[in-house]
Amino acid sequence: MKPIILVTNDDGISALGIRTLARLMKPIGEVYVVAPDSPRSGAGCSITCTRPVELRRLPDDDGIHLYACSGTPVDCVKLAFEHVLPSTPTLVVSGINHGDNASISMHYSGTMGAVIEACLKRVPAIGFSLRTSKSDADFSPYTDAILRITHHVLQQPLPEYVCLNVNFPEVDTLRGMRVCRMAKGIWSAEWEDAHQPHGKESYWLTGHFTHLDPEATDTDYAALDLGYASIVPIKLDMTAHDCLEALSPLASSPQI
Amino acid sequence: MKPIILVTNDDGISALGIRTLARLMKPIGEVYVVAPDSPRSGAGCSITCTRPVELRRLPDDDGIHLYACSGTPVDCVKLAFEHVLPSTPTLVVSGINHGDNASISMHYSGTMGAVIEACLKRVPAIGFSLRTSKSDADFSPYTDAILRITHHVLQQPLPEYVCLNVNFPEVDTLRGMRVCRMAKGIWSAEWEDAHQPHGKESYWLTGHFTHLDPEATDTDYAALDLGYASIVPIKLDMTAHDCLEALSPLASSPQI
Repeated sequence: MKPIILVTNDDGISALGIRTLARLMKPIGEVYVVAPDSPRSGAGCSITCTRPVELRRLPDDDGIHLYACSGTPVDCVKLAFEHVLPSTPTLVVSGINHGDNASISMHYSGTMGAVIEACLKRVPAIGFSLRTSKSDADFSPYTDAILRITHHVLQQPLPEYVCLNVNFPEVDTLRGMRVCRMAKGIWSAEWEDAHQPHGKESYWLTGHFTHLDPEATDTDYAALDLGYASIVPIKLDMTAHDCLEALSPLASSPQI
Repeated sequence: MKPIILVTNDDGISALGIRTLARLMKPIGEVYVVAPDSPRSGAGCSITCTRPVELRRLPDDDGIHLYACSGTPVDCVKLAFEHVLPSTPTLVVSGINHGDNASISMHYSGTMGAVIEACLKRVPAIGFSLRTSKSDADFSPYTDAILRITHHVLQQPLPEYVCLNVNFPEVDTLRGMRVCRMAKGIWSAEWEDAHQPHGKESYWLTGHFTHLDPEATDTDYAALDLGYASIVPIKLDMTAHDCLEALSPLASSPQI
């Protein structure tokens, strides 16, 4: 039996990136696309709590099963597991995002939100993103790398609660791939006046990213800047284990 | 000069929890509340990219500055830093959330999304949440603990990229406080049929949480179950550093 592969994203089901990714997965397994019905960039790990989420089956595309969902990328994964897939999938892939999710941008990323959700459900999961602003980006320079990483994960399972954040630079030919850590960075000048009528104060989110360890060679930003794909293993246990000891004076019992 | 303290949440500016938290902070500093204009539970680290975000100043409440924002908790922090606060704050606190954000629920939490955003901006930040479903919850059993943790963070700064996730059990008297790790867990049975007319398939997000290491005594869930407040230091560098070596066969250069 072919492995079941769930494909999702945050750019929405019509994006070129997810179509590319679904077609790449087709020779590997039975592919189900369950993706937002419109763009959900910046959705992070958000879920929809205040209204129902709609799920709509679309006609198959050349053997690929397609479902549009009115919720977030995490909702898509949760809905797929419970109401779409015939069984627990072998793999969840998300992307290919139009825009990079390297460094701290990972925290805001809906692409990675879906990956984190799959990983919380104990399924191997990989997010793929391309550093581009183009909706008609050329993904052909990255297909070999995507397949190589996918096969690696299928053959050598990642540890529990670990998933992958893969980013590509916009190049004609990749220089190679690097296994990296998340770069440090900070966003500033984040708002642009939206000039609403009637005196309402409102702003568009924008911003300038500053890379805070530009000398480091072991980060995802460094890899991308040099023309390499970056592969960052992401840990879902966010406990700062090395800080537990220093905080122990706060522990108290039986009185606070 | 009094320290500047930013207070935010994900339950919205009208929630009892944020009012309680803002009043608790008042003796410590100049308090600015910048919070969502309506509930944003489950917002995680999401940001608003597809429309402008409105910011509305409300009348001060007994010396506390109040601003309602149409965006997510992370948007609130970003807007506060750029368009509300007179300077970088000394501290950002988020909550008190009506509902716990322990274990993996942290990933979906807007309360913690705001805390993570402040921490990304290099400001000490703490999220407070109460395991309750009541909108009129009694927060008085937790005020001493909140003040003790707040003063600790002000006096002994947390390391770079580390913030705190504090959860309280619903009790008359806390048994004490514990410094913990995030418990492992999994959500299942997550959707309830919304029975939409016209044959549309739609679901409400709900779910059942299963604690996956119930024997462990060092987790936030164990602390809460025993009547203790849980304090989990959260690390924003999500790199699984201990997996870099195992993935190194994927690295390649100059060919992929």
